[in-house]
This record gives sequence, C-alpha cells and structure tokens, in this order.
Amino acid sequence: MSELPGVVVTGVSGRMGQMLVRAVLASDKVKLVGVVARSGNDWVGRDLGTCMGGTELGLTVSDDALETFAKAQAVLDFTTPAATVQFAELAAQARAVHVIGTTGLEESDLQKIRAAARHAVIVRAGNMSLGVNLLTKLTKQVAAALDEDWDIEIVEMHHNRKVDAPSGTALMLGEAAAEGRGVSLSEASDRGRDGITGARERGAIGFAALRGGDVVGEHEVIFATAGERITLKHIASDRALFARGALKAAIWGQDKAPGEYDMLDVLGLGD
Amino acid sequence: MSELPGVVVTGVSGRMGQMLVRAVLASDKVKLVGVVARSGNDWVGRDLGTCMGGTELGLTVSDDALETFAKAQAVLDFTTPAATVQFAELAAQARAVHVIGTTGLEESDLQKIRAAARHAVIVRAGNMSLGVNLLTKLTKQVAAALDEDWDIEIVEMHHNRKVDAPSGTALMLGEAAAEGRGVSLSEASDRGRDGITGARERGAIGFAALRGGDVVGEHEVIFATAGERITLKHIASDRALFARGALKAAIWGQDKAPGEYDMLDVLGLGD
Amino acid sequence: MSELPGVVVTGVSGRMGQMLVRAVLASDKVKLVGVVARSGNDWVGRDLGTCMGGTELGLTVSDDALETFAKAQAVLDFTTPAATVQFAELAAQARAVHVIGTTGLEESDLQKIRAAARHAVIVRAGNMSLGVNLLTKLTKQVAAALDEDWDIEIVEMHHNRKVDAPSGTALMLGEAAAEGRGVSLSEASDRGRDGITGARERGAIGFAALRGGDVVGEHEVIFATAGERITLKHIASDRALFARGALKAAIWGQDKAPGEYDMLDVLGLGD
Amino acid sequence: MSELPGVVVTGVSGRMGQMLVRAVLASDKVKLVGVVARSGNDWVGRDLGTCMGGTELGLTVSDDALETFAKAQAVLDFTTPAATVQFAELAAQARAVHVIGTTGLEESDLQKIRAAARHAVIVRAGNMSLGVNLLTKLTKQVAAALDEDWDIEIVEMHHNRKVDAPSGTALMLGEAAAEGRGVSLSEASDRGRDGITGARERGAIGFAALRGGDVVGEHEVIFATAGERITLKHIASDRALFARGALKAAIWGQDKAPGEYDMLDVLGLGD
Repeated sequence: MSELPGVVVTGVSGRMGQMLVRAVLASDKVKLVGVVARSGNDWVGRDLGTCMGGTELGLTVSDDALETFAKAQAVLDFTTPAATVQFAELAAQARAVHVIGTTGLEESDLQKIRAAARHAVIVRAGNMSLGVNLLTKLTKQVAAALDEDWDIEIVEMHHNRKVDAPSGTALMLGEAAAEGRGVSLSEASDRGRDGITGARERGAIGFAALRGGDVVGEHEVIFATAGERITLKHIASDRALFARGALKAAIWGQDKAPGEYDMLDVLGLGD
Repeated sequence: MSELPGVVVTGVSGRMGQMLVRAVLASDKVKLVGVVARSGNDWVGRDLGTCMGGTELGLTVSDDALETFAKAQAVLDFTTPAATVQFAELAAQARAVHVIGTTGLEESDLQKIRAAARHAVIVRAGNMSLGVNLLTKLTKQVAAALDEDWDIEIVEMHHNRKVDAPSGTALMLGEAAAEGRGVSLSEASDRGRDGITGARERGAIGFAALRGGDVVGEHEVIFATAGERITLKHIASDRALFARGALKAAIWGQDKAPGEYDMLDVLGLGD
Repeated sequence: MSELPGVVVTGVSGRMGQMLVRAVLASDKVKLVGVVARSGNDWVGRDLGTCMGGTELGLTVSDDALETFAKAQAVLDFTTPAATVQFAELAAQARAVHVIGTTGLEESDLQKIRAAARHAVIVRAGNMSLGVNLLTKLTKQVAAALDEDWDIEIVEMHHNRKVDAPSGTALMLGEAAAEGRGVSLSEASDRGRDGITGARERGAIGFAALRGGDVVGEHEVIFATAGERITLKHIASDRALFARGALKAAIWGQDKAPGEYDMLDVLGLGD
Repeated sequence: MSELPGVVVTGVSGRMGQMLVRAVLASDKVKLVGVVARSGNDWVGRDLGTCMGGTELGLTVSDDALETFAKAQAVLDFTTPAATVQFAELAAQARAVHVIGTTGLEESDLQKIRAAARHAVIVRAGNMSLGVNLLTKLTKQVAAALDEDWDIEIVEMHHNRKVDAPSGTALMLGEAAAEGRGVSLSEASDRGRDGITGARERGAIGFAALRGGDVVGEHEVIFATAGERITLKHIASDRALFARGALKAAIWGQDKAPGEYDMLDVLGLGD
C-alpha cells in the first residue's frame, strides 16, 4: 500500500513556518514527519502542538536538519538565504523535494542551489500563489501582443509594515512585461514618479506602491492607450495560499527528474 | 504610384456612421470615396460636410449603395441586419472588403453573409476594440488553466440608455470562459441573481449588469477562489475606438483571400 | 480598584461565537466571564479551550443563560431571532449591555427588543464594522447632495456560500441612498437586471450581487452622471472586524442610559 | 421680459476655450455675447464659427477685453495668471461675474483677485467638477472621523502628456485629508515611495501617480486599517464637465453679493 509523502517544515517558529504546518496538517495528501527550528530557538526540544498554543501533536521540534530530512520526501523552506543554501544540500542528500520560498537569494546562493538541483528536485519561486504566477504569464503575453502605443503601469498595495517598494512580485511582473516587449526593465522602468516629471516617456514601464492596513498583497498591471485600457489584477487575501502553493509544489515534485523548477512548471503553465 | 484604398461608410447619418466618417477623414492610410444613407433619409442628396454641421466636403450623400460601392476598396457598415445582408452581396460584387459591426444578426442572416464571403473578404465582429478582443482571448485561456474551484463572474457597466442586459460583449466573454472550461454557457450561466438564491453553484458563470451616466463600456471577468482572485478588465472610454478598429480591419483586409474573418485575425491574435 | 467589564458570549460553538471569544480574549479592556450554547449542543458542560481545539481556559460552556448573564456587564449575541428575543429580556434583568448582531429579526421581535431597551442598554446593528457604518452615512449624504441626473448603483461581492442577494448591508446602503434622496427604496429599487430591460429609469437605485471564492464582503455605491462618476467602497477582509466592533459597542455601552442604540451612536457618527 | 445672461469666453482659441464655447452654445440658460483671444492670435478679427471649423456664428473674435466684457454678465476664464489678473479688474468694472479656472496663480496674483472681489463676484476653483469638489468635502470628513489607525493613500491617474505629479487635485485632496485630521500636509505627505522605505510611518498621507493613455482624470482616496478599507473615488471621463461646471458657476453668481467664492459655494456644499 502506498504511503503519503512525508513533509518537513523548516523555520517552524516563524509566521510562515506555522502557516506551512497548518497547511500540511489540513491536507490529506501528505503527512507531517518533522519540523526544524534554528539551534537556540526556544521551541527546540518541545512538542510542536504545545508551542503553537494547541494540544500536543506528538512531534518534537528539532534543530538537526540532517536527521529530520532523512525521514522526508519533501522539505518546505521559507527561511533565510544562508539556511536555505545549507538545506538545499541536505535535502539533495535525503533525495527530498526542496520547495524554496526564501527571498533575497543572491547569485552566489543561486549557484549553490543549482548545484544541489543536479541530484534532486528543487522548486523555487518568489511567490507561490497560482494566481500571481498566472498573472505573470498573462502580463508577458499581453505586453508582447500590444505595441508601445499602450503605456504599461504596475501598481501594488501591501500592509503598512512592508519595508521595500515596489514589491518583489511587482518587479517580477515588470520583468515579464519587459520580456514580452523585448526591452530591458532596468532601462524602461519609471519608479517613484514625483514632481515635475515631464510627459511620460514612450515605452516606459511605471511602478507605484501603496501601503496601508493589513493588505496581504494586490498587484495590478495596466495597459492604457487612446480610448481604452486593459487591466490584469491579482488580489491575495490570505497568506495561507502561499503555504498551499508550496504544498502543491511538494506533491508535484515527487516523481520528477532532478532539476530546478518554478511554479509555472508546477501549475502546468510553462511555455 | 499606389493609391490609398477608397472607403465607403454606410448608415452615415447615425451616431456610429458619423464616428466612422471622422475616423476615415483623420486617417492618412485611406480616403473617403462615398457615403450612403437609407432612401428617404433627409441627408440624401446633400453635402456630407454640411449635414455634419461643418464646412463643405464635396461629397454627396447617396442612397444608391450599388453605384457607391463600385468606387470602393472597403465598406464600413454598422447598420441593421436587413441592410447588412444586402450590402454583403453588393460589396462582394464590387470586390470591396466588407467590415461588419452590425449586431443582432440571426442565423439566416449569417448564412447569407457566409455566402458572400465565398467571393469577398468580410470582417465581422460584435466589438471592434483591440482591447476587448484581447480580453476575450485571455478569458478563454485563463478559464482553461483554472479548475472549477475558481468561480467566474462577469460584470459590465454601460450608459443609462442601454436597453438590454448583459451586454453582447459580456455574453461574448461568457462564451469564451465556457469554451475555455469545456462547458456550455447556456447551462452554466447564472444571470440576474436576486432573492434567496441558495449557495453559488459550482461551475456557474455569473453575470451582473450596471447602468449609469454615459459610461461607454466596461467589462470585468473575475476568477475567485479561496484566498485569491484574478480580474481581467477592459475600459472603453471613447466610442471612436470602435471606428478606429473598423478602419484597421478595412486596411488589413486589402490583400487577404476571400473568407469571413474576425478581429482576432485582424489583430494577429487568432490561434 | 476598578474591575474590567465582564463579557458573556452566546452561541459560542458557531463560527461567529468563536470569533467573538477570540476578540474578547485578545482585549485588555474586558474579561471573558461566561459562554453560552444552546441546550443539547455537545460543547455544553465542557471546557471552552478544549472545545476550540486549544489548551484549557478554565471556563465551562453553559446552557443556562440566566445564571451566566448574572455575572456579566455585557452580552455579545450573534445568534437567532428566537434566542435573541429571550436574551434581551435576560440581559435587561442582569443590567448587562446587550450587543445584538443577529439578523433576520422581524417587527414582532423588534418590539420585544424595544421593550427590553426601556430598562437596559441595547446596541443593535446589521453590520458592526466601523467602515460600513461610515459608508452608510456617506451614502445618505451624497445622495442628498446630488440630483437624479446621477444614477445610483450598488454592487456587492461575497463568498460563494452566501444564500441571499443582495446582501443585507447592500440593502442598508440602498435605504440610506433612498432616504438621502427622499424616495422609497421599495419603489426606486431595480434588482436582478437581465434581458430586455429598456433604458434605465431615472431615479432608480440599482443592485448587483457577485459571488465567488471566500470574499468576506465588499460593497460599492456608484453615482454616475454625464462625464463623471463618484464611487464609495468598503472592503472587509477579515471577519474578526465584526467581533471587534461588537466589543467596542459593549465597552461604549457601559455608562449609557437605557435605550436602543446603533453603531453610528457607538462610533460617534450619529446626526 | 427677462433676458438670458450674456457670457464671454476668454482664451477662445485654446482647447479649454473651445470647450467653454461649446458648453455655452449648448445651454439654454445663457447666451454667448463675445469671445476674446490674445492680441496677435490669428483667430482675432475672424468669425468664431469658421475658426472652429464649422459654419459662421456671426461672432467675431476680439482682442479687446474691456470692450467685450462691457456687454457681458459673466466671463469664463481658463487662461494664464497674468491674463487672469487683468481680466479680474476689467470684469469687476463691467460688473460681470468672473469665473476663474486658471491654475498656477501665486500669492501676489491672488491678492489682486481678492481686491477685484471687493466690487464683483468671483468664483475660483482648481477643478470645476461637481464630483471632485464633493470628494474633497467627503475626504476631509472621513479623515476627521477616523483616527491614525487608518492609513490614508491618494492615487491618481492621468493621460501620458501630463508633466507633473501628483496632480493638483490629488494635492487638494491631500490638503483636505490633512485638515480633517488636524495635521500639516507638508509634514505628513509621503510621495514617490521607492526603494528601502522602512515601514509606513503612522499618520502619513501617501501619494501615487499613474500615467497612461488619454485618461482624463481619476482620483482615489484610500483609508486602510486592519481588516477593512474605505475608498472614495472620482472618475472624470469628459473634459466638457469642467466647462459645464464653469457655466453653472456663472449662472449661480448672477445674484450674489460681491466676494470670492469657490465651487463648494456654487454646489451648496460649503459648511
């Protein structure tokens, strides 16, 4: 009889870690076989359920990733670049699918991840929502279909604690638009418009960032020309959807050949 | 030396007829060679410029379509089903591209148009805007990519003189969504929601119609699931864009083989 | 030393009951002194914390409202008309502020509630969000400022399990618009627009209802005239805000004279 | 028998001047008695109808404002600060209502206008749309009703030829929000958000400017807090509405006492 794939969650004491745990526990397609926190974190050695303010789950938080990954078919990892690079190697040794939602990875980190992907399945994405990945694909396609008589503007709104602007996802959409149009985003990008700007430059890709309340994440790509406008918009209203996306990636990756994949692959939207 | 294609506008005394005239006069890629009104219309026999409240244009409004079409390479036609069916035959005789924006055509009308298209180029579309046609294509594609966990809703807003709901374009978007999903719109369609409706039926395609002010036309397709939403929206702010689309179709059709085409063909968006 | 007001939550095993419990536990301005469920509910007699899937809270779920209310300064009640009418009398006997979020109350129920309000403070509202109540006030005011050249449309979107349309809040907004304009909503109301409707009737107040995904609740009031539009919109993204509103009402009511109040009173927005 | 008030339009050869002429000609409440252009403009001395590309109107474009104003009960003036200051004095001598839509006026200009307003009725506004003026009033009111737990963001979109950001109307809305909240806009204002901005500052009023196509003007004020959002939005879809607003001001001013008024006075929305 076939067993459910066993999943490990890293960075379990953080907000996203707990989201991932809840998504795994709610699923009937995987089972939670281990949870990892950083050495020194006060959850280590205690029961996960108790740490999360509920009843006991019979699962102890570990700081030994190597040992924990050994039991797993997949590792869900939204931590830091330094941790993720280590986990990539350990997950590859364990032949576990490594789902990476960590942001801020630099080129040197990406090289190490690519090295690990020679022996194991890695799924990596800046945003694990189905909707955002679909929006990215549509943005590229529409930008390719329309000429520069159509001005492109990208607007995003996030909660008031976000520290950078525009969001990583907005930039990803900008890249998609630039690629569709065959230009370089760094040259076309028009950010932080303020003061005497002069008329809009033909071909520019504008960005605007709104901040307020506890908005999870909204992104809108506007294509405007004389007499008409097309807008493509995504609204994320629940952080849990990123956790569900990661879980979907973990299941999808179970029978794949080693390599580095993204959410478009998982969602069957790749070209 | 190559001449500009000559264009005839039918139904010239109507609001859309005048829009078409203005678009043709403003273009440097075609020239206006004739204008037609219905027998008995009081513009017939008078100078077009004077009729439109401006200076003379040296072009007399005719009620003889046969004679007028003989000078033309294209006929722009937003009239009535009865007139359009006749014009299709006359335009085919004149070897002129027939651009049809007429709505309300029935199956028997369409058969006659198809017959004419064996000898001539016909471009026919319920909505000649580039944006709306692109939106239709995207709607089909997104509906195909997402399963029935995503609820589809189509909302449109038009001016307060519109007499039917939902708009023909909203229904066209609904058809595209149904086709993408592989279902029949007539079975999936959920219109005029009001009262005790019960929970939303899985797989339904909902429609809502707003009316107010002088809104030219706005259409939005919403795909909503747990935690996220994608919306595809089109805003038409100037009726002239429909005239410009018709003109684009007339030019595009100049070197095409006989047959019936739509705006996706003209825009290079057909599959 | 002054004690925190003691709060009782009724209908505690339901979704809204649990929301209310969480809001009370999270507040440092009130304390939870009792929880009530209907006789026969399997939470009765058990510890609340355990029932909610967490650790023990030392508070047993009771089916004896009279005894439980005796300890309370406020009762938070989102249950059924039959229960609420009983609770109104019991809360009045206990001199506890009765906060009523129950919907579907009929005139006969309202009479009993009014009777109870002669001896006690009752705060009753169909929607306890600050934003929605403010929107209602603005809608009335704008409708009063603009004449019938401005068409009014009310659009709402809710999750796909909602069984009625338009929402109670949309109707409340419609009432506010009608009142501002000095007309009767039942005469002006234009619902479920579909088919050959004819041109929009001057002075009509239109309604449209969208359903999809897990949308908590969005309401938009559109005022449209030639050349311009004003829209007033409210987005609720978290059901907890209704619980927080109820709690605010409970605290506000502590030092008020007997009577029936609404959220505009609580929010200081009454005329 | 009572005569219709006679209106003069200044700067008649410009885009806004022609809009004003059209609005006056379309109205049955005023009559056009004169049009003025700057000395040297090639419309001077010619028939207005011919200049505008239509049939003769029997009205010659003049460069003598003094003489032309003498026949008028109202002057509609969307020109330059230098011209407007002169016109204010001449209109006061003629006892004509001076409607000023000119922007960019400095304090020294405003002083001269105020001096003229001692003897004549002057209506001056940066935006003559009813909707925008109502939005301004609502913004102030909502900002006063909500505390700083609600983040305020102002977003505007205009056509791609606009050279400054944010728009004057967006800044006017920002002033209204700041006034409602009792703070100074220059201190609270957060413009051109880009890069590592840190978390949103409590109490900030954010601005974002979108540019694209031929969008006439859209303004949105967002109030966002935990779990809910209110947005107040205005969409202008036709520049003619500014002309109609000016005309409304001219008629309103006919029986008023000398003084300087704004559109809130005209619209009966002043406090």
